[in-house]
Amino acid sequence: MHPGSSNTSSLRTVEWKNDKVVMIDQTKLPNELVFVQFGNYAQVADAIKTLVVRGAPAIGVSGAFGLALAALQSTASTKEDLLSDLEKAKDVLFSTRPTAVNLGWGLDKIMTVAKTGNTIEQIKELVISTAKKMADEDIEINKAMGKNGSVLFDNNDTIMTHCNAGALATVAYGTALGVIRATKESGKHVRIIATETRPVQQGSRLTAFELKHDGFDVRLIPDTAVGYSMANGLVNKVVVGADRIVKTGHVFNKIGTYQIATMAKQHGIPFYVAAPLSTIDLENRADDVIIEMREGSEVTGVGGKKTAPEGIDVINPAFDMTPPELLSGIITEKGVATAPYVESIPKLFAAN
Amino acid sequence: MHPGSSNTSSLRTVEWKNDKVVMIDQTKLPNELVFVQFGNYAQVADAIKTLVVRGAPAIGVSGAFGLALAALQSTASTKEDLLSDLEKAKDVLFSTRPTAVNLGWGLDKIMTVAKTGNTIEQIKELVISTAKKMADEDIEINKAMGKNGSVLFDNNDTIMTHCNAGALATVAYGTALGVIRATKESGKHVRIIATETRPVQQGSRLTAFELKHDGFDVRLIPDTAVGYSMANGLVNKVVVGADRIVKTGHVFNKIGTYQIATMAKQHGIPFYVAAPLSTIDLENRADDVIIEMREGSEVTGVGGKKTAPEGIDVINPAFDMTPPELLSGIITEKGVATAPYVESIPKLFAAN
Repeated sequence: MHPGSSNTSSLRTVEWKNDKVVMIDQTKLPNELVFVQFGNYAQVADAIKTLVVRGAPAIGVSGAFGLALAALQSTASTKEDLLSDLEKAKDVLFSTRPTAVNLGWGLDKIMTVAKTGNTIEQIKELVISTAKKMADEDIEINKAMGKNGSVLFDNNDTIMTHCNAGALATVAYGTALGVIRATKESGKHVRIIATETRPVQQGSRLTAFELKHDGFDVRLIPDTAVGYSMANGLVNKVVVGADRIVKTGHVFNKIGTYQIATMAKQHGIPFYVAAPLSTIDLENRADDVIIEMREGSEVTGVGGKKTAPEGIDVINPAFDMTPPELLSGIITEKGVATAPYVESIPKLFAAN
Repeated sequence: MHPGSSNTSSLRTVEWKNDKVVMIDQTKLPNELVFVQFGNYAQVADAIKTLVVRGAPAIGVSGAFGLALAALQSTASTKEDLLSDLEKAKDVLFSTRPTAVNLGWGLDKIMTVAKTGNTIEQIKELVISTAKKMADEDIEINKAMGKNGSVLFDNNDTIMTHCNAGALATVAYGTALGVIRATKESGKHVRIIATETRPVQQGSRLTAFELKHDGFDVRLIPDTAVGYSMANGLVNKVVVGADRIVKTGHVFNKIGTYQIATMAKQHGIPFYVAAPLSTIDLENRADDVIIEMREGSEVTGVGGKKTAPEGIDVINPAFDMTPPELLSGIITEKGVATAPYVESIPKLFAAN
């Protein structure tokens, strides 16, 4: 299995090409498949902030590629000045999405490697090669995660997913959608129900696009129809991604995840989270995690069309927290963790 | 308390004026407050179907006004032919929203009265005067319901509501929002959280508009933020309307209600339904109620802007069912019913 050779998805979300970062502009989906190219780390920071690229693993690698660009951009003549330029770029990149643990992880990994270099040339080379390796590893990790998760799904399952934890959320293949891809590749027939995922509609714009693009049997529902779908027997299992998981098994993911997990529990429907170990934050407690509040304009309109009265106040949290008692398991590249997570999560890291 | 004299809402959703039906075109809200005028019952049917007018009580009265127009339009020269014309109009009007019990109720009430007339002139007069009386009664009922419900809410409560069960869902004043109006009129300070209510966005387009128009402290959330809002202590109570309630207390209301009720139960937040007795269907069982499926285009885009890939399959149910164990009470114009509803609901009718 060679990274990047997947036939299941032809979409490559972020890539290093000729000393530039190439990304799919996800704000243009599902209407246009447009690739954008950046030579400046500030453009990458802006792309992360404006959701040109989104999804925890994809922005982790994008952050790393951003530092690779910063290394190339730097005109420093000493090692110290170069590291200082990288630190500055890291701060700019990190400030774009402070909740996403992968972004910090990707940036820290590059900085650690950068500090091991002896010369300016060596540091630049190390930064670029490490970022490229992280992109390749992301695909490998997703395929391992998919394989681990695929055994949890049955032939003819209808699987609900929320937001986009797909190829478009990662470098390629996907986390939650990677598990669905691997289930299909294992010979099982599956159908998918994708939630729209207001306010930014990653479910309809990205997941529905990506799965239809790859020939899956996918149906779209408004976020309000989760309860109906479950009560009417339309859903067998749920799988979603995560932006951050703490060691107690509390999952921070796209706003709306918590209520889907609650409805799944109420209907006895297994609810899985698929995420790489890099999404697991062993340091912070659930209470320490800051949930970003996003612009009200995301809720008061869609694509320039106003759907709320002028000047209305809005509560628009990016994420919510799903407690561990609502989870059936956390699917990772090292295996599936189940309750109690304070025990099972460290075991996955020990196996690393 | 004179019908129509409310200072709390200046919006009159549907009205009979100079032998025409005048309605607020709710599809134009929140951007424009436009009144439309119809002289033909087929236009009223179309208005109901295309959501120019919506909300169970408002479409009940609109159906009655539709029959009043049909009576005026009829060129029948015998009583039997006039009744036959009215039956035809009734079928056209009823087919627009078959789940909404108030529509059938409004139409049946007019037909029953029509049959008591002896002459063509008398029938026409009876139909028109009865429809007008139904409109006035709707406002009186909402005010009585509001008064009954207001005691359930406390000073400084933040009340969540879904969809629009407001003045714009009724002739005026509102059911769920009537309860909120009455609570405010009783001297208590309340704040409101309105859910967007995808796919048709009655929450952002209508409830947020109506409450802001009337000076309430209202905030808007995407439907995905219900769980977050409750888990973070932002909500003290919930009140919603209903499209149909059966005698076991199963509530059919706008898609998304069921999951809000489930989340409220999980967080120990009282969940109330406010609806007139005309919304209660004593004949059918919960299993007998047909839930309308609406056009997929409501979910795949907003205002001409495509937000999903071409040709995607959609599941778009208009309503869902909330079981009685999730309710704290059903607020009506005759009092508040609580569990067991098979006992408390008939008592409200006996008091009628």
